[in-house]
Amino acid sequence: MTGIAVLSEAQLRAAVPLDMATVECIDAAFRALAAGGVVMPPVLSMHLPQVNGEVDIKTAYLPGFSGFAVKVSPGFFDNPARGLPSTSGLMILFSAETGQVQAVLLDNGYLTDIRTAAAGAVAARALARPDARRAAILGAGTQARLQLQTLCLVRPIAEATIWARDADRAARAAEELTRALGIPVRATGDREAAVTQADVIVTTTPATEPLLMADWLRPGQHVTAMGSDQPGKTELDPRCLVRADLYVPDRLSQTRAMGELRGAIAAGLIDPERGFGELGEVLTGAAPGRAGPEAITIADLTGTGVQDTAIATHALARIGPEGEPR
Amino acid sequence: MTGIAVLSEAQLRAAVPLDMATVECIDAAFRALAAGGVVMPPVLSMHLPQVNGEVDIKTAYLPGFSGFAVKVSPGFFDNPARGLPSTSGLMILFSAETGQVQAVLLDNGYLTDIRTAAAGAVAARALARPDARRAAILGAGTQARLQLQTLCLVRPIAEATIWARDADRAARAAEELTRALGIPVRATGDREAAVTQADVIVTTTPATEPLLMADWLRPGQHVTAMGSDQPGKTELDPRCLVRADLYVPDRLSQTRAMGELRGAIAAGLIDPERGFGELGEVLTGAAPGRAGPEAITIADLTGTGVQDTAIATHALARIGPEGEPR
Repeated sequence: MTGIAVLSEAQLRAAVPLDMATVECIDAAFRALAAGGVVMPPVLSMHLPQVNGEVDIKTAYLPGFSGFAVKVSPGFFDNPARGLPSTSGLMILFSAETGQVQAVLLDNGYLTDIRTAAAGAVAARALARPDARRAAILGAGTQARLQLQTLCLVRPIAEATIWARDADRAARAAEELTRALGIPVRATGDREAAVTQADVIVTTTPATEPLLMADWLRPGQHVTAMGSDQPGKTELDPRCLVRADLYVPDRLSQTRAMGELRGAIAAGLIDPERGFGELGEVLTGAAPGRAGPEAITIADLTGTGVQDTAIATHALARIGPEGEPR
Repeated sequence: MTGIAVLSEAQLRAAVPLDMATVECIDAAFRALAAGGVVMPPVLSMHLPQVNGEVDIKTAYLPGFSGFAVKVSPGFFDNPARGLPSTSGLMILFSAETGQVQAVLLDNGYLTDIRTAAAGAVAARALARPDARRAAILGAGTQARLQLQTLCLVRPIAEATIWARDADRAARAAEELTRALGIPVRATGDREAAVTQADVIVTTTPATEPLLMADWLRPGQHVTAMGSDQPGKTELDPRCLVRADLYVPDRLSQTRAMGELRGAIAAGLIDPERGFGELGEVLTGAAPGRAGPEAITIADLTGTGVQDTAIATHALARIGPEGEPR
C-alpha cells in the first residue's frame, strides 16, 4: 500500500472546506471541460429494486490534471429506517500518467456535496447580477444549506428565504443558516413570494413535479436548478426555459437526458437538437453570458465527472500523499 | 474508517490462493447468474489515447451475496517502458444491504487473475471429459500459468504443452510449470500438433487473428477460449464454433459483442439472434452440457462482473473485516 493515501471522511471534512479555493477548483474543471480533450463516459447506473437501492459510477479524464477520479455513489433508500444515511460512497484517485491508484477517499459523499455546491457558486458568479442581494432557496436539505453558503462567497447576499415541503425542516434550516452566515434567513410557506422577491433562486429538491412557475420569474433574476440528476426529476416549469433569456447547462448531453432541459424538450417547447453554450464555455468566453441587468438566466446543473476529478485532485493536494494536512 | 478493511495485494495473495475454494466460489457466481435476479450493467470503458491507456469498470449485484464489488481496471500501455506493469487497479466491496463500503481491495489485478483462472476450471469441470489428461495451452503469460494450474485441480492432467508466439517465453513458462505442478510441461513451436494431441485446450492470448483452426479439432476435445475480452480480439477460427457440438458462453450478451461468438457472427456463420445456454445454465442443468465422450465443446469466457463480486466477497470472508486472516 506504499504511496497510496487512504483518507477518512473526517480528514476530508477538515481539509476541504467549502471555500473560495474549492470554488476555483470547480471553476477550473468547467473551463477544462470547455477547452476540449476531456474524456467523460456516460454514467454507469445500477438499479437495485430488490434492496431499494441504486449505484452510480462516474469518471472523467481532464488534460492537465495529474489524476482522474472514479466515484461510486450508492443510494440505499431503506437506510434511514436503520439509522443510516441513504447515500455513502467513495472516490478513488488514479494517476493520469500510469493509471495506478494514488488515493482512496472514503468521503461518504462529502466531496460530492462540496463539488455540487461549488458548481452553484461558479454558475452564480458567471450568471447572476453582481449586485444580487436576496436569495431564495427551495429545499431544506444538505444542498439547500451548502448552496446558500457558497452563494454568499460570490455575491453580496444580505437576506434569504427558504421554502420546503416540510415547514419544520425549512424552519430548522433557516435558523441554522441565520446563525452560520450572519444574515437573516427566513422560512416561508409562500413559495411564489419567495421566488418573485429574490435576485437569485437555487432549487435543491428531488421534486418530480415543477416547483417554480415560469410566470413567477422577474427581469434580472438568476435561477440555478441543481436537483434534477435523473430522468424522473424536475423542479422548473418547462416554460421557464423559454421565458429565460439565457439557459446554460453544465453538460448539454446530460441536461437533455436528465436535467430541466429534458422536460422542456418532452413538452415540445425546445427542439431536441437545439444547442446551448455550456457553463464552461460561458466561463471561457466561448459562449455568451448574461446580456444585461434585466436578463433572466437559468443554470441547469446535473453534476459532472470533471467535478469529481477536480475535487479529488484538490483534496489530495490539500492533504498530501501521506494523509497529513499540508 | 471504522469497519472498512483496506487490504494490500500482499495480504490478498496470501489469503486467496487459486484453490478449490476459489473455484467453488466462482462456480457459485455462475449458478447465481443463471438463477436470475442478477443485475450486471454493461462495462464502463474509458479510452485515453492521449496517454495510451484505458480504464474498465465492472460491477454486478448477485442475490444471496452479502456484498457487491465495483472493479476498476486501468491499463496504461506505456508503463513497461517506465518499469511498471501495464495493468493495476482495485476492487471495492459494498454491503448489498446498505450500500456502505465494506472493504477496499488494493489487488493490482490479482483477484481478476484468480477469478479468471477459476472460471477456466469451472468451464473444464462442466464440459471437458472427466478422463482428460493432456492439456495444450496457447500463450505464455500469467493466465497461461494459472489456467494450467487450475485445470489440474479439476481434471487428471498428466502432461501439457505450451505454445506461444515468443518461443523463449513458452520455454520459461514450461520450465516453471513443470516444477510447480510436478507434471511434464513441454514448450512447442508446433501449434497444430499441440492442439490436435490435447484433450483440453485453453487459449490465453491477446490475439487479433485466429490461432486455432477448426480442422485441428478432434472428437472428445474441450476448448476454453479466454483471451478475447474486447471487440478486436479473436483466438478461434470462427468455423470452430460451427464444428463444435456445443458452444457455451459465459454471458451471451458479452460474447456476441466481444467474445469468439462475435467473429462467427461477423463471418456469417452464426445467426446473431441464435441463443446458446450460458455456463451457469449448464451448471444448474437448465441447459445441456457435454452430450458424450466424442463431443467437441467450446467455452467462450469474456469475464463477468459476477465473478468480481464473488471473488471480492470470498476474499473478505477469508481475511475478515479487520484485515486479519481467518
